[in-house]
Amino acid sequence: MSECVFCKIVNKEIPATVVYEDNDVLAFMDIGPIIKGHALVVSKKHYDPVTETPDDILAKLHVVAKRIVQAQMNALGADGVNIMQNNGAAAGQEVPHIHVHVIPRFEGDGHHWNWNPKKYDDFDEMNGLATKIKNHLK
Amino acid sequence: MSECVFCKIVNKEIPATVVYEDNDVLAFMDIGPIIKGHALVVSKKHYDPVTETPDDILAKLHVVAKRIVQAQMNALGADGVNIMQNNGAAAGQEVPHIHVHVIPRFEGDGHHWNWNPKKYDDFDEMNGLATKIKNHLK
Repeated sequence: MSECVFCKIVNKEIPATVVYEDNDVLAFMDIGPIIKGHALVVSKKHYDPVTETPDDILAKLHVVAKRIVQAQMNALGADGVNIMQNNGAAAGQEVPHIHVHVIPRFEGDGHHWNWNPKKYDDFDEMNGLATKIKNHLK
Repeated sequence: MSECVFCKIVNKEIPATVVYEDNDVLAFMDIGPIIKGHALVVSKKHYDPVTETPDDILAKLHVVAKRIVQAQMNALGADGVNIMQNNGAAAGQEVPHIHVHVIPRFEGDGHHWNWNPKKYDDFDEMNGLATKIKNHLK
């Protein structure tokens, strides 16, 4: 039996407040919301990280997330929504089973993401990293 | 002529350091990286927010993002990656043209997302929001 908490939720071994379900995807409320109304979209089958997730399942996760965005805006009155998918402990991922955070945002909600852009030393530094990425994508 | 900065990049009116391009999607380096190596994946056609983006284009954006995650891990040595897609000024979105942030993370990189989970007052509060979302999704 899997020890993965999201697999346990999918298998109904742990309760969750489900908002959407189909053959491939389950969406439920995050019990530790960044902002109240925060939902999680997970694959029913266990994949981790995103690079191990099949393209069709990844697409389904994001189409469901999009529909939840619309619901958070229309039904909860959200002014905006963050969609976030973290991979690896270094990225803050806590449960190693692919999940998409869908976080409603309200003007003046007090949350900030600590968005602190850095600067490259020079163009060569940025271009060097870009070349490594580009060559890997070929 | 569009005033959208990402449309201008797509149309080559503004230079960018491109890492990937196909008929529907362009990916390039963010010049204000949260962590160096940070890339953006945008649709060539202008859509905003995610709820206005067709499902097939949304899927393509995330499949390209996934490939960039693999490149950041393999070619840059990233330990993890954040994928983030912000909708609306309330969510911190700066350019109103759909874009997916792909942010490589390294152990000890010093960044934190200010991930500060809240608590619901009680189950009814969470369930009430879930019911609103669920009813909208029907």
